[in-house]
Amino acid sequence: MSGAVPDYQMTAWLMAVCWRGMDSREQTDWTHLMWKSGKSIPRQSTGDYWIDKHSTGGVGDKTSLILVPLLRTITDECLGKGRVKFPMISGRGLGHTGGTLDKLESVPGFSCRLSLQQSSKLLEQHGFFMVGQTDEIAPADRRIYALRDATSTVDSIPLIISSILSKKLAESLNGIVFDVKVGSGAFMKNQSDATELAKGLVAASKHQGLEAVALVTDMNTPIGTSIGNSVEVWECWEFLKGQRDSELEQLVIALGSHMLSLASNGKYDLKSCEALLLEALSTLKCQRTFVEMFENQNGDWHEFEKIMAKGSAEHEEIIFRAPQSGLFLSCDALKIGKWVHQRGGGRNTASDAIDPWVGAILLKKCGEKVEKDEPIARVRLRKGDWSEQVELQLAEAFQWSAQPSSKKPLIHEVIV
Amino acid sequence: MSGAVPDYQMTAWLMAVCWRGMDSREQTDWTHLMWKSGKSIPRQSTGDYWIDKHSTGGVGDKTSLILVPLLRTITDECLGKGRVKFPMISGRGLGHTGGTLDKLESVPGFSCRLSLQQSSKLLEQHGFFMVGQTDEIAPADRRIYALRDATSTVDSIPLIISSILSKKLAESLNGIVFDVKVGSGAFMKNQSDATELAKGLVAASKHQGLEAVALVTDMNTPIGTSIGNSVEVWECWEFLKGQRDSELEQLVIALGSHMLSLASNGKYDLKSCEALLLEALSTLKCQRTFVEMFENQNGDWHEFEKIMAKGSAEHEEIIFRAPQSGLFLSCDALKIGKWVHQRGGGRNTASDAIDPWVGAILLKKCGEKVEKDEPIARVRLRKGDWSEQVELQLAEAFQWSAQPSSKKPLIHEVIV
Repeated sequence: MSGAVPDYQMTAWLMAVCWRGMDSREQTDWTHLMWKSGKSIPRQSTGDYWIDKHSTGGVGDKTSLILVPLLRTITDECLGKGRVKFPMISGRGLGHTGGTLDKLESVPGFSCRLSLQQSSKLLEQHGFFMVGQTDEIAPADRRIYALRDATSTVDSIPLIISSILSKKLAESLNGIVFDVKVGSGAFMKNQSDATELAKGLVAASKHQGLEAVALVTDMNTPIGTSIGNSVEVWECWEFLKGQRDSELEQLVIALGSHMLSLASNGKYDLKSCEALLLEALSTLKCQRTFVEMFENQNGDWHEFEKIMAKGSAEHEEIIFRAPQSGLFLSCDALKIGKWVHQRGGGRNTASDAIDPWVGAILLKKCGEKVEKDEPIARVRLRKGDWSEQVELQLAEAFQWSAQPSSKKPLIHEVIV
Repeated sequence: MSGAVPDYQMTAWLMAVCWRGMDSREQTDWTHLMWKSGKSIPRQSTGDYWIDKHSTGGVGDKTSLILVPLLRTITDECLGKGRVKFPMISGRGLGHTGGTLDKLESVPGFSCRLSLQQSSKLLEQHGFFMVGQTDEIAPADRRIYALRDATSTVDSIPLIISSILSKKLAESLNGIVFDVKVGSGAFMKNQSDATELAKGLVAASKHQGLEAVALVTDMNTPIGTSIGNSVEVWECWEFLKGQRDSELEQLVIALGSHMLSLASNGKYDLKSCEALLLEALSTLKCQRTFVEMFENQNGDWHEFEKIMAKGSAEHEEIIFRAPQSGLFLSCDALKIGKWVHQRGGGRNTASDAIDPWVGAILLKKCGEKVEKDEPIARVRLRKGDWSEQVELQLAEAFQWSAQPSSKKPLIHEVIV
């Protein structure tokens, strides 16, 4: 940050890490330096427990939006009001993957551009916040990421670990749960890379004094039934009102129970945590906290509800129907993610604008048998954008087979 | 060279090559690009054969100064006047290794800063030239070398190969003989690296259409009896007048016979070449050509002879004697090279000036049994530079043992 290391030395070093890796000591020291290039959320030790969850990014991954109100509700009740806090600094989507901030911002007025001080105040008042990275947080990571992006050194697992952790450490956490995605729609395409990343994240977190758990979870098909920004927020809302995709529920319960278990400091085992979470899912308190999540940061939930009910004036909804009969459906996370991205729901570079109203809602579950002309998806896109080519691209996101494909388990592995 | 690739991408790529290597096609294409970033000596195809010799650098390595006049003499006689030409673009010394240009420049007035056009004219007139690299030759190599130097990517064998060849290809050669040094005083410290470099140089040369041979030769002890600039020129002169160090002779004959054999296009086998060379070594013609080598490029040989005879006014000569009795001597190439370098005979950066009069002349051969107080070296250094510490450092360059150490063979390997 002082300029003493020129970019051309930094990139040579990055490439060396790419091919040579880092040992545990190097990973720890480097992560620490990256973190300390910036500021952290100020914290007095008052016996409370700060926890976050981090996903490596996927398609339709909306779990954070459910987990925060859900855990806030339970922990207040079971562990004492305000004892557990959720300082969530999230990222934006890039390419075919979505980002929590983009989803939150589909609610008109919602602001996630808060300083650390403003975030701190929110955390004190409400026990959580949902904000974006600021220039104060790990500035070295931003500079280095730009160099990695320009030198094909993004894929290095030790560099990914230090990049993720440098930002998470700024949250002054006690514990963290990682959701390492693996599959077509994930950054990690194969199990062994995902396991390596998961183990590395847990080990590096522990070296920095955090409690940590990582789940390696499947990302070959989208999570839940919606892909896009506003549609995912809406799915979360309906989820909390009782209309739940079973896989999304499974993932929420899995991640949430590990978070709750860590925060309870041994008071609850995983089984009890699961039971507590399932019970809390149907409470009105949860729904209220979900709405507060937006309103605390200036989001106009009622305006959002109105738009979702009557539809945006500039967009239209198309029913996409099965082109053939008696076949089993599967939906590819990468392809449907790219399709929504290309319709305007994603961005190519960090400075691109996003269209929050674009998205796809799956009407059939992956693995279901479908008859010809049955509706399989409702898609929202800008008026005039629908064409034969766009339809063909959408059709390619769905695969058909005579046999139900053997579905991979949702949770592949848990690293503690 | 157009600026389209920023330095930070170039260095990342260099580091990737460092750890990943290059395959044969990559090596060929990259070398070609480096070469074509600059100009070459213009050449009409008139049936002549252009050949050079390249050493990877050592201590006391003066073979080029002998090989050029020697081969010029023989080829004119045996293969036809002017049929073989020796366009020699040489380098300067860096650190403990010497450079041919620095040695040549110890002759007052000698100029090696010639343009390609001036060099071309010399080659036409005299059949050889001894010049330095100009900005016209492989400018990409110079820019990339500066980046390699700043990013610890100098040691990469594929990058060394392309760097060497890009400059040699500018000589528009038909054939080349490489002397790849291995040992304490060489860039390559171990045999396997040296063999890899030698094989790579030969393969890459052949891919560019050149005939090529590489010798892997020992560089644990200095070559010949003198180390330094003027003293090495003088050793060559005495060598041609009949006072020959046997190892230097062996190396000259080995390198020279491969050069002559290539240039003869099958007319002479290696055995005949060796015989021809040994015979030519004692001719007056050879001595005359040696002096011409300097005079062609404005060097004042008589002035040089005068200084060597009466000594330089600013320097003194010290006799260094054996500190103990009845032990076998060995001299470490790296340590004696560094000692001369530190006395002013070498440079740390390319822009440093060199003191041509500083040097060491070994009076005993490595492996010889020496009695206490016998003179083992005459050293020349700046007046006032001699001190107890300088003497101690010099003493460290010599090792003593009760048994004669088993000397490594001079020629380790020949790659054709």
